[in-house]
Amino acid sequence: MILWNDRLIPRSEASVDIEDRGYQFGDGIYEVIRVYGGKPFYLAEHLERLEKSARAIRLPLPWDSGLLAEKLNQLVEANRLVEGTIYLQVTRGPAPRNHAFPEKAEPVLVAYTTEVPRPEAMLKEGIRTCTHKDIRWLRCDIKSLNLLGAVLAKQEAVEKGCKEAILVRDGTVTEGSSSNVFIVREGTLYTHPADNLILHGITRAIVLKCAGEAGIPVKEEAFSVDALHDADEVFITGTMVEVCPVTHVDDRKIGSGVPGPVTRRLQQAFDEQIARQCGARDGIMGERR
Amino acid sequence: MILWNDRLIPRSEASVDIEDRGYQFGDGIYEVIRVYGGKPFYLAEHLERLEKSARAIRLPLPWDSGLLAEKLNQLVEANRLVEGTIYLQVTRGPAPRNHAFPEKAEPVLVAYTTEVPRPEAMLKEGIRTCTHKDIRWLRCDIKSLNLLGAVLAKQEAVEKGCKEAILVRDGTVTEGSSSNVFIVREGTLYTHPADNLILHGITRAIVLKCAGEAGIPVKEEAFSVDALHDADEVFITGTMVEVCPVTHVDDRKIGSGVPGPVTRRLQQAFDEQIARQCGARDGIMGERR
Repeated sequence: MILWNDRLIPRSEASVDIEDRGYQFGDGIYEVIRVYGGKPFYLAEHLERLEKSARAIRLPLPWDSGLLAEKLNQLVEANRLVEGTIYLQVTRGPAPRNHAFPEKAEPVLVAYTTEVPRPEAMLKEGIRTCTHKDIRWLRCDIKSLNLLGAVLAKQEAVEKGCKEAILVRDGTVTEGSSSNVFIVREGTLYTHPADNLILHGITRAIVLKCAGEAGIPVKEEAFSVDALHDADEVFITGTMVEVCPVTHVDDRKIGSGVPGPVTRRLQQAFDEQIARQCGARDGIMGERR
Repeated sequence: MILWNDRLIPRSEASVDIEDRGYQFGDGIYEVIRVYGGKPFYLAEHLERLEKSARAIRLPLPWDSGLLAEKLNQLVEANRLVEGTIYLQVTRGPAPRNHAFPEKAEPVLVAYTTEVPRPEAMLKEGIRTCTHKDIRWLRCDIKSLNLLGAVLAKQEAVEKGCKEAILVRDGTVTEGSSSNVFIVREGTLYTHPADNLILHGITRAIVLKCAGEAGIPVKEEAFSVDALHDADEVFITGTMVEVCPVTHVDDRKIGSGVPGPVTRRLQQAFDEQIARQCGARDGIMGERR
């Protein structure tokens, strides 16, 4: 089943209009929410960000967060989802094509679930990444459907045998094509400030909180590509990749080429968050340690 | 009828998948083609640009331009369209959501027609415009479905009583939210060079050709907001707006606040292009002069 506006319907019954503004302009916003042990993880924070994105593009959401959370929980239950994701998007809906907002348009909300295991191998072994020019627009803080810049960067990374493209604007690392980027340098954690140039990741925020609790010094400061290459540790964060070690950037080994101690500590702390929120008995990191 | 991949079908039978990459990433490209007197205007040039956009995002087009032109002509005929537009878009098609290109995906092509009269009042009287920060990505030369930056700018312009937002990046005028921008200064025509920061408009190219033929000096050079405000004449070009005089920018009168002589001359030349290509007996400008 999928959630189509306020109803649960079979996926085969859903049909997007050819003039839906999501289809013609990318005029919409989205969220990807992780489900662990049958429970959506940090659901309230995702729906709060959805509301923020909606305000930024002046898209009236059809429901408040409370009702939407209820519907999403019903969706997860209907699909008996245990480990996976909820993908949710809202577009400004169908209207005769015109750049300016239509006078009358009903937003279209669609949400569906996918079974996805946790990315165990990546979390354990880390990933290779490469840098890529950040050519995206200047409102990357809006989680919008205008993702072509990220798509093209990710594709180039994949073709180079990498799992993620790390984006660089004017010599400065912003974020990954679908993740936030952190480096560790002499024990301090650095990540780009949460401004208009990056998505304000929920996992990013969780990691910053965990770092604070663990007494790890944090600086939300932009850093250069050189600082990235020469970092003691690098990791990326995101709903799907969780806290994922980066072992290589542009074929250069980071540290000794294996996940570092600060990364491991934050992975452990993230696991504990999952256990606390979703009642999973053991996190992946715990199991393999 | 609409064109749905290679078939003409009733619009009600078309249905976009919720996981079409156009819907989730804006992963697609488009064209808007004017039809005058039942004939598509500069169709070959539009399809050539479509191919260029497709190459830029590495989207394999399902057909070559020749076959596509044939299909579009059939569409125009089936709908008995005389004055209006063809909207055409191609997306990378449905695939399980993932930023990187799917291994297997069939592009989805959709084209439909709309009856639209020529914008007579605007062409005659000119329009009010306002400047707006250009926050779009750095590949505006690709006519992609990632249009949210343009949408938000246009909407703000409309709310200020303007017909177009003129976009400004780092103090320099790039283009309109859905048009190219020209100024006239001491008899010379200026417009932003056709680089990655603007769409390479077909109407822009026609106007440059007409200007050359008319002996009007042309400089494809970026110009400042001050130069825009202080120009002798300003006009915008686009498939829908044709060659449209701008009488005001940011509530400041351009020249004497009425369309200037160079603009009028280029409107006339553009009308002649329509007459030549589409056999319309008299252009709008001719009729009212």
